[in-house]
Amino acid sequence: MTIRYPNGKAYRQPSAAKATRSKFANVNFGDRGMSLEEELNASNTYYLENGIAVIHKKPTPIQIVKVDYPSRSAAVIREAYFQHASTTDYNGVYRGKYLDFEAKETKSKTAFPLKNFHEHQIEHMRQCLQQGGICFVIIRFAVLERLFLLRATDLNSYWDRQATGGRKSIPLADVEQLATEIHYHINPLIPYLDAVDLIMDAPSSSH
Amino acid sequence: MTIRYPNGKAYRQPSAAKATRSKFANVNFGDRGMSLEEELNASNTYYLENGIAVIHKKPTPIQIVKVDYPSRSAAVIREAYFQHASTTDYNGVYRGKYLDFEAKETKSKTAFPLKNFHEHQIEHMRQCLQQGGICFVIIRFAVLERLFLLRATDLNSYWDRQATGGRKSIPLADVEQLATEIHYHINPLIPYLDAVDLIMDAPSSSH
Repeated sequence: MTIRYPNGKAYRQPSAAKATRSKFANVNFGDRGMSLEEELNASNTYYLENGIAVIHKKPTPIQIVKVDYPSRSAAVIREAYFQHASTTDYNGVYRGKYLDFEAKETKSKTAFPLKNFHEHQIEHMRQCLQQGGICFVIIRFAVLERLFLLRATDLNSYWDRQATGGRKSIPLADVEQLATEIHYHINPLIPYLDAVDLIMDAPSSSH
Repeated sequence: MTIRYPNGKAYRQPSAAKATRSKFANVNFGDRGMSLEEELNASNTYYLENGIAVIHKKPTPIQIVKVDYPSRSAAVIREAYFQHASTTDYNGVYRGKYLDFEAKETKSKTAFPLKNFHEHQIEHMRQCLQQGGICFVIIRFAVLERLFLLRATDLNSYWDRQATGGRKSIPLADVEQLATEIHYHINPLIPYLDAVDLIMDAPSSSH
């Protein structure tokens, strides 16, 4: 039997999960001024401080051309250039395993463009997979405010098919089917290790 | 029975290991112009290209203050400062395990000064050990041209004893006893993963 409010709207027993989610129903995370990188850094700090995992973002590689050494002060870099990283941005250790991932977002509402990734990042994840690492990408559909963790093995299939005339993006429907959706939380903000647990605890895990 | 050369010197059957070492007997690696960092980077490239391990040096973290965007050219960093890293310099994946290490050298001939390491590096290795990572330091006595791999757990003991009046360095004799000596080779130049194998394959490994 459905219990109804005086206004006719059906009453539903709030579950703990729903309560948590509803708390965030009116919060637009995308507009809070935090980038995906900042949100992941905050999450990694939470994981570190609670002894759950040690995961850091790597510094951006920079080619330094000229450095000044003013007397009595720190060295000042006066000419330098951004370089392309030869690896992904994040790595670390969790539950005895090596974790390696990249985080990217798109404004598209229908598909995740593969051009967000670079050949050397794909290659790096392949190398890490060969060594038994756990590799994945965290992708955000910014407009939809939806976050997913997609295994590198699944990403690789789409990447390779590009070369033989395959499409240049992963349709949202495919992402929904292959990836694990991550819902924003408080601590950590992005609880992506829950999705990593699913990979690690899968019966026939190929990571 | 000892077989002797006509000059009276005893003949010894050369083992494969000795043959390798003698090949380098007259090579002064310390003067070849390569820093320990460059030697390790070359070794990591060898390991990577041969599908043995994926280990990279992290870029130096830099705080960027001012960037110019000249038309039609790449962004130029005009003011930036070196920052202290919050982790060790090297990490990666080998045989399914997370590896994390720092490399340092000393000119001392008698002991390795602990001031070569920073509190945050020690703390980072402790955190990684807790997650089941394999953590160590590669230390070089530059004048003696001797290289060792010392486990983070052993380094930690000396580090902690400093606070209660212990000595500020690890005597060479202790290093010889606790650490694994690494001999220079051709490919890779510094075959430190052989020493890591000893840690990983130890019967009661605490890493």
